[in-house]
Order: sequence, then C-alpha cells, then structure tokens
Amino acid sequence: MTQTSSKSPPPISRFSLPKLEELPDDVRARILAVQEKAGFVPNVFMVLARRPDEFRAFFAYHDALMVKEGGGLSKGEREMIVVATSAANDCNYCVVAHGALVRVYEKQPLLADQVATNYRTADISPRQRAMLDFAMKVSTEAHLVSEADFAAVAGHGFSDEDIWDIAAISAFFALSNRIANVTGMRPNDEFYLMGRLPK
Amino acid sequence: MTQTSSKSPPPISRFSLPKLEELPDDVRARILAVQEKAGFVPNVFMVLARRPDEFRAFFAYHDALMVKEGGGLSKGEREMIVVATSAANDCNYCVVAHGALVRVYEKQPLLADQVATNYRTADISPRQRAMLDFAMKVSTEAHLVSEADFAAVAGHGFSDEDIWDIAAISAFFALSNRIANVTGMRPNDEFYLMGRLPK
Amino acid sequence: MTQTSSKSPPPISRFSLPKLEELPDDVRARILAVQEKAGFVPNVFMVLARRPDEFRAFFAYHDALMVKEGGGLSKGEREMIVVATSAANDCNYCVVAHGALVRVYEKQPLLADQVATNYRTADISPRQRAMLDFAMKVSTEAHLVSEADFAAVAGHGFSDEDIWDIAAISAFFALSNRIANVTGMRPNDEFYLMGRLPK
Amino acid sequence: MTQTSSKSPPPISRFSLPKLEELPDDVRARILAVQEKAGFVPNVFMVLARRPDEFRAFFAYHDALMVKEGGGLSKGEREMIVVATSAANDCNYCVVAHGALVRVYEKQPLLADQVATNYRTADISPRQRAMLDFAMKVSTEAHLVSEADFAAVAGHGFSDEDIWDIAAISAFFALSNRIANVTGMRPNDEFYLMGRLPK
Amino acid sequence: MTQTSSKSPPPISRFSLPKLEELPDDVRARILAVQEKAGFVPNVFMVLARRPDEFRAFFAYHDALMVKEGGGLSKGEREMIVVATSAANDCNYCVVAHGALVRVYEKQPLLADQVATNYRTADISPRQRAMLDFAMKVSTEAHLVSEADFAAVAGHGFSDEDIWDIAAISAFFALSNRIANVTGMRPNDEFYLMGRLPK
Amino acid sequence: MTQTSSKSPPPISRFSLPKLEELPDDVRARILAVQEKAGFVPNVFMVLARRPDEFRAFFAYHDALMVKEGGGLSKGEREMIVVATSAANDCNYCVVAHGALVRVYEKQPLLADQVATNYRTADISPRQRAMLDFAMKVSTEAHLVSEADFAAVAGHGFSDEDIWDIAAISAFFALSNRIANVTGMRPNDEFYLMGRLPK
Repeated sequence: MTQTSSKSPPPISRFSLPKLEELPDDVRARILAVQEKAGFVPNVFMVLARRPDEFRAFFAYHDALMVKEGGGLSKGEREMIVVATSAANDCNYCVVAHGALVRVYEKQPLLADQVATNYRTADISPRQRAMLDFAMKVSTEAHLVSEADFAAVAGHGFSDEDIWDIAAISAFFALSNRIANVTGMRPNDEFYLMGRLPK
Repeated sequence: MTQTSSKSPPPISRFSLPKLEELPDDVRARILAVQEKAGFVPNVFMVLARRPDEFRAFFAYHDALMVKEGGGLSKGEREMIVVATSAANDCNYCVVAHGALVRVYEKQPLLADQVATNYRTADISPRQRAMLDFAMKVSTEAHLVSEADFAAVAGHGFSDEDIWDIAAISAFFALSNRIANVTGMRPNDEFYLMGRLPK
Repeated sequence: MTQTSSKSPPPISRFSLPKLEELPDDVRARILAVQEKAGFVPNVFMVLARRPDEFRAFFAYHDALMVKEGGGLSKGEREMIVVATSAANDCNYCVVAHGALVRVYEKQPLLADQVATNYRTADISPRQRAMLDFAMKVSTEAHLVSEADFAAVAGHGFSDEDIWDIAAISAFFALSNRIANVTGMRPNDEFYLMGRLPK
Repeated sequence: MTQTSSKSPPPISRFSLPKLEELPDDVRARILAVQEKAGFVPNVFMVLARRPDEFRAFFAYHDALMVKEGGGLSKGEREMIVVATSAANDCNYCVVAHGALVRVYEKQPLLADQVATNYRTADISPRQRAMLDFAMKVSTEAHLVSEADFAAVAGHGFSDEDIWDIAAISAFFALSNRIANVTGMRPNDEFYLMGRLPK
Repeated sequence: MTQTSSKSPPPISRFSLPKLEELPDDVRARILAVQEKAGFVPNVFMVLARRPDEFRAFFAYHDALMVKEGGGLSKGEREMIVVATSAANDCNYCVVAHGALVRVYEKQPLLADQVATNYRTADISPRQRAMLDFAMKVSTEAHLVSEADFAAVAGHGFSDEDIWDIAAISAFFALSNRIANVTGMRPNDEFYLMGRLPK
Repeated sequence: MTQTSSKSPPPISRFSLPKLEELPDDVRARILAVQEKAGFVPNVFMVLARRPDEFRAFFAYHDALMVKEGGGLSKGEREMIVVATSAANDCNYCVVAHGALVRVYEKQPLLADQVATNYRTADISPRQRAMLDFAMKVSTEAHLVSEADFAAVAGHGFSDEDIWDIAAISAFFALSNRIANVTGMRPNDEFYLMGRLPK
C-alpha cells in the first residue's frame, strides 16, 4: 500500500478553499447544479471558487467551447483535444477528468488512455489525427503554426469555425493545465473509473 | 522600404472579422468604450468579437486579473508578467500591446524592451525578478513548479493571493498568446510608440 | 464511436507475427505458461517471438530485474519506474501494461494513472519520489547523472544494489519503449481495466 | 518607477572598463570617430576596448560583413538577420542596438520589434523570410543545414556570395550575442527611440 | 599533463567489481574467451559481471544483434549505428569501444570520428545515411517514428528484417548507453588507437 | 570499405575555393607559413581565404585568444574549451582539428576523445571541469549566465581575465562551428592521428 495514511484525504489544492455557504449565490448555484448532475463536485469547481470573478470567466469560456451544439466537432472529439494537450503538459487533473469524458462521450473505454500516452497510435480516424496534430501544434508551438498547418486540417473537412474551435480549446486548456499544475489540483477519485465499464 | 505596398493595410487576423453594427449590444458597447478611452480599438477586440461568448469570457477573465485594485502587484508589474511570458511564446501582439502598457504604467520607456528580450538583465528589483522567475516557470513548465518555487517568491513578500495572481496572469496569457499566434493577430501601429516619449 | 469497424481487430505489430506452432519449444512454452497464468498472452510475447534469440534475451533480462525477490524495491515500485519512464517516452504499450501491474501489486487503483501523467504529484512517499527522480534522470539524461544524484537517492535508504536496480530497470525500459514504439506494439485490451475494481 | 535610483547609472559591463586616454591610438581613434558620427559611443566599443586585439578583430569582422557595398543584401536586411538571431539568443544589447539600425536603414519604425518577436509574421517579403529562415537555422542548428536549405534560399535569388553573407552574419552574431550576454553589456539609452519617429 | 597521477589507474566503474575467480563458470569462461581473442578484457564485461543474470542476458542480446551473419547490414554498419546513437547520448564508453570496431570492420580509420561528431557529413553512402537517420529517430524520438520513416529507409533497399535490426540495435544501445553512463564505465585505453594505423 | 571511390578526394567546402596564387600577399603568406610549420595546410585556411577580410579578422581573433602567453589557461586548456563546445555543436572540423591540438599540447592521447564525448567524465581536474562548465554554459545558454556561475569558476582560482578568456574562446568557436558546419568544412586527414602515438 503506497498511500501513507487513510485517515485524512489528500488536499485538493495547495491554496485555501472557500466554504460553500460563503460563496456568491451564482457560484454556489453552479456548484450545486453540477453536483446534482454528476453526483459529486469536480474539484476544479472548489479550487477556483475562491476567486468568483475568475470562476465565472473560466466556466463561461469553458462552456462556450466545450458544450456547444453543432459544428464539426463532436463532444467526444473536443474532449480528445483536452486529453492530448493536457498530457503534453503533464497535467494530471485534466488528463484524468477529461479522459473520463472521452470515455463517456465516445463510449470507448480504451480511447482516453491511448490519446493521453501517444495519440499518434490511438484508435482514431485520420480526420481526428489531423485535428489532434493541429491542436498539439497550437499547444506546444503556436508561433510556428503556418498556412500549411491550416491547409492540412482543412483538407480533412474542418471548416474555419471548426479550426477556431480546435485552436481555442487547445489554448483554453493551456490556461487550465497551468492553473491545475500550479494549484496542485487533485482529480476526484470518481473520474478514474468512469466510462471504463460496460453499462 | 520593406512593406510591399501602402495601398491596403495588412489584415489583422487570418479569420474573418465581424461588422461592428452586427455585434451584440454589450460587445459593441465594450468596443466603443475602449475606443473612446484609448483613441483606437486594439485589434484583439475585433479579432475576438466574431465569437461573442468567448469575447465576453476572455475580457471578463482579463479584467479580473489585470485591472484589479489592491494586492501586492502594481498594474505595471502585472503587465511585466505579460511581456516576459509572451516574449517566451514569440507572441508579437501581446509583446507589443502590453509592452506599451508597461511603459505607460511604469513611466519607464526602456523597460518593456528589456523585459521582452531578457528579463534577467532588465532594470527591475530583486522582488520583481522573483515574480518573473515564478511567472516564467508557470508559463514554460508548470508541471515542475514545486514548494521551493513558492518559497522563493514568498520570500520576497508576495502573499498567497499575490502568487495566485502571478500564476493566473501567466496562465491566462498562455491562452492569449496561442489565440493571437494562431489568428495572426496584428498589433495596432499605435502601440509601438506609446509611452516612449516624455510627456 | 471512434473505432472504424469492429470486424477485424487492429494489428498488434507492424511487423509480421510468427505462428505459435512454428516457434522453438522453449519460446512456445514460455508463451503458453504466461497464458496459463494471466488468462491471455500479452502482445509483447507474440511481437518479439519472431526473433527467438532476442525474445530469450529480452525476457531473461526482464526477469532478472523485475521478478527478483529481496532487495529494497517492492515489485510495485519496480513497476512504478516502468510507468514513469515509459510515459516520458510516450510508449502506450508499456504505460498500459505495466500500469496494470502497478495497480495489482500496489492494490492502489489510482496510482498508475497518477505516475503516468506526473509522478511528482502522485500519491507516493518521499522515498518513492526520490527513486523516480533518479530513474527519470537515467531515462532522459543519463550522461548528467552525478554523485549528487547518487547521494540524493542513497539518502532515502537505497543501497548500491537498489540503485543499480533502479538504473537498470530504467535502462531496460529505454530499450523496451523503443521496440514497442517502432513496432507499433498494441496493448491487450485486458490491461486497461486490470486492478481498477475492488476484489 | 522601477529603476532603483537615478543617482548612478547602471554599469554597462560586469567587467572593468578601460580609460579612453589609456587606449592604443587606433582603438581610441575608432571610438572617437563613432562618437563623432553617432553622437554617442555605443557601449560595445567601451566594453570590448579593454582587449585591444580582440576589439580590432571584432570590428574588422563586423565591418567586413555589415558595411560592405554591393551584393544581394541591403544594409537593412543585414541588420534584420542580426535582430532575428539575437532575439533567439535573448541578447538585449544586440536586439536593441541593431533594432535601431533596422528602423533607420529600412525607414520602417515597426519592423525591428516585429522581427525580434516573431519574424515569421513580420512585414517582410517572402525573399526576406527565406533569408531569415536560413539565418535562423545557422544560428540555432547549423549542423543540420542541408542542401535543401541552400536550395530554398537560392530559390529566392540569393547567390552563393549572398548565402555566405547570410551565414557569416548569423555566425558572427552567435559570437557577439554570447560576449554581450556574458559581459552583461547594456545598450545605450539612445538606441531605444532611434528611428521610431518620422523625420 | 592533465591526469593527476599515474600511480593508481582510474576506476572503471563507480560500482564494486567482482573477482574473476568468484564468478559463475560460464561468466568467467566468456570473459576469458574475449581476453584470449582481443588481448584484453573490455571493461563492460567486468562492470556487468557483478550481476551474472543481467550479464548473460546483456551479451545474449548483444550477440543476437551484432554478430549475426547474413542480412542487409554488414558488421561495420551495425557498429556505425552504435557509434551514432551513443554519441547522441554522450556515452564515452560506447563511442570509444564501438568506434574502434567501426575502424576495424570498415578498414576506414577516419570514419568512426566522423560518425560520432556528425554522421550527416561523414564519408558514408546515401543508403548508410538513411540507415542512420532511422536509427537516430528510434534513439531520440521513437514515439514519432511513422510509416514515412519506414518508407524512407525501405526505399534504400532495406528489408523488414533489416529495419528491425536497425531499430533493435538502436534500442539495445539506448539501454547500454544508460548503463555505461550511470556506472561511469571507463573505456579501456586499448580502444582509442585500435584501427587507426595501417597494418 | 565505405568511401565510394579513391579517385577524387572529397571536397573540403561546399563553396568555391580560391587559387593560392590569386590571394592577397598577406593571406598567401599566412597560408604558406602554416604549411611550413605544420607540414600541411589546415583546410580552414583555404575555405576562409575566399574572403580575405574575413580571413584576416578570423585569424586575428583566433590568435588573440588561442596563442597568447601568460594567463591562467594553458594552451591545452584553451583547446579543451574548443573541443567541448564544438562537440556540443556537432562540428566535425573543430572537434577533429582541435582534438589533435589537445593531444599535442597536453601530451595526453586519450583526452580529446573523452572531452568530445562527455567532458564530465574526462580525465581532467576539478578546476578544468569548472572551466568547461562555464564555457559550455556560454556556448549553449549564455543568456542564463549569472553571478553564481562567475562565482563557481572564480572559486577555482580563475581571475576575471581568465574568465573573459574562457567566455571569449567559447563565443569565438560558436562562430567558427557555424561557419564550419555551413560550409561543410572537412578536416584534413592528418589531424585524426596527430598526438595519438608516443614520440
């Protein structure tokens, strides 16, 4: 057994956490809503809630990119972008939490682990491979993105709006990964098994 | 003379731009307000306005981090973080636009160029050096930030709230830099000279 | 659903595979023994079997390092070294297969995913952290290993024999990761869920 | 205000400086000549003058590459090479001093800052872009320069002599940047504003 | 004279060495055989002998890859792979010892030094260049090896079996280099001059 | 035998070479003098002679740094700096030619190969190790050289003048390495064996 003690759970952030009852109403309402839906409160909500304005902006940005309807990217594909770029940034919270969403949305229990380790050999389509190549370049060397990169991804049928989505998701999680790594944000235990078992 | 022709100005984004009159009221109001105050519309506003929800979240996040009163970081110091990390990401828009703000806020015409090229030799205090060391680590290898890094920056009198600010500004511009680089966002000509001449 | 078709399973190697009945007796016996014990044949056995001499040397080396009794490293700790260094090498086979072993040996369902993404924030002891720091330096920049590195790991109670083990495991999987990545070695589906559920 | 005190100006080198009157006649004459022409003595002259033989060789080399007449590179283009490669080496002196020369020679007040931050998005011609691509490869990974690189730059009309110039300027500033960074060579304040205002 | 003293020779490993007479018979026999053949015992044998099982596996693996007859790679070409990849890993033992073998097998006294410093400019054929390009990619970024890399090397006439050899040799010396660097394995003085003089 | 044909020797530069009789008198005289002394003309002289002004500046700089009398660095130590930094830049000409000089000056036939592959494990004194650590930092990341680096090297008895020498030699060969790599400068065969045999 590796964990030192089972008495107190490990902290979910190196920064202090707010009390739920002291939060602004809208922030608390959002947290209670996600708890209602997911059955638990993903730690990112509690870690960020100590800064209500940043909390609101963060989730507004997140929702604008990740939960939108329509467009050329499925919800699962959006989450694949998160997993691939977050793994490149060694961000444990984002890989584990969004890996769960990849499994759930794609109904593919093996996919998230493949994308996290090496998306180039994952069970994805050539179109998805092109999407992740573009997302990874934005994540790791955006200053080198060229028209050739745009042409490569557009060649797989992605529209300009889709490409903006790919880039913006990659960019948004460049932010998220850094916040999660600096705060030592711990993924909830619930995420690890989610979507791994047949329903 | 390098520029090919003076007839049509170079594009400010590789993505299409919205028409001001077609934008949602709050977005247009924000743009007109900044024009009123600055005398011109910084291109980031027009480039992002084609996505109103992302526009709102972006500037809400920006304002929460950059224009707040109080705390251990001056406005000029916040902008120094932007310039140092954006230079590390080779982001022309952010270095030029926020370099102007460093000069204006700090009333120091040389400082922005120094911070952009090599902040380690810039005319800054040891405390500011520690602030930028931490910000740069968040920007370039957040997964390696350790308690020793927190201790180093705290040792210069930065509180936990200040350190969160430093990290969050660095993380937010990790996002901004990638958006600006992917969109080919062009800095307004006005920024280059701003704050360089004595008033 | 991402996978293109469920008709034929994806290949487990880009190189041709031998037929079990054509293999030398000792190689076939080893394969049948592991199938008997594990309930399936881990793909590494079939992928390497086309080269019987290399197969024998590979598993002899593996067993000398990984299944030995005694010494300062538990079986689970040996597997943690494999997971951490294989993740740094983006080796999907090794991360998935040995991640399963970490979970089984350590009876800790979350640990492998933590170690794979960022061992610095995993639920491990300071002693295990020092072990992985040393292993990672051997994996990524062995030419820079210095007496200070030996002193750091020895300071946590590891003997010279233990340190050799740490280094040799890291070195052996430098070999394994490259073989697995070049051959496109695919982890068996069985590994992904192994050790994740309470017994 | 960031600078600690306005009493004593910051040092221009971490090494001792010679007295002008103690210098060999030719070295002093060169310094007085540049002062006569520029209105001030660029700090590189005083920092290097403590080693007269190296001073002579340095400026002889510099002049052979930078002030020559004829050839396919304009003076402004030669200075662009300096700015792009010096920025890649984080050399504050060279970026600021030679950025001034880019502005003056090219009569383009914005160009130097663009080239310093990301020459790939600067207002330059495709031919100049190819010139800087070659120069940057020489600066950062000369051991990988191949015939394909020669063909790419030659394809824009650069002769073998021009390509030698591009490579030699890049190589010479690999030397200059290291000297400037090690000595903590400080750019003169005069450089920062030079060429930014219309005459 | 640089070496401090000629009294005691420098150690050949930072780990303890076994006594020849205490070794298992087969290990001792192998060592005596190589001494008989080469005229001295290459230090790798003594350094590894303290772990007989690893010794046996190491040399079994080595022999399976390096001394085989037939196939598309000559003995000298196999050793070139070792020298190029070991130089990239800054492994003094492997560069010196296998550089000697390149000289001996190829009857080319200059080749090993060329391959060690920059194989791209060495006196080798285009086919050998393609072989080393593939080997180096396996050594330094095996996770990026793609079908295009396989096609490039196959285009020079290497069969699938040859490509496996190239990859496996590169992978095996990824192991060897790390062991040699961690143990501080010292090359025997005899290797340095071997094959440099005409017979 | 690897080399394709013994008929025509491989070129010593990818650029055209001047004819000796057409060179300016001083350049030709310098070349004849080195031939008289060394018994052959090192290729660097012929490759650079096509540009007489650069030739003169190059060798004036070289001589000012490498052949000076007095100071805390021996001739052999100066050459060690060249070999270590040139190996880091994968420069075959400089490693081979200056490796010969290390052997000759230090009367140590093994030293150059050790320094080229990994100076950290070479047979050098702690003082020489500190010298090379400083030189390597100047060569690879001069913008990060800090007062701590100066203190480390000064702590081994190097004066400010010595440290300037170390830095300037490292910087000068940053130039030389790039010129040699871009021109495909080939080391003379004579260098490889020089200093390897007892006299």
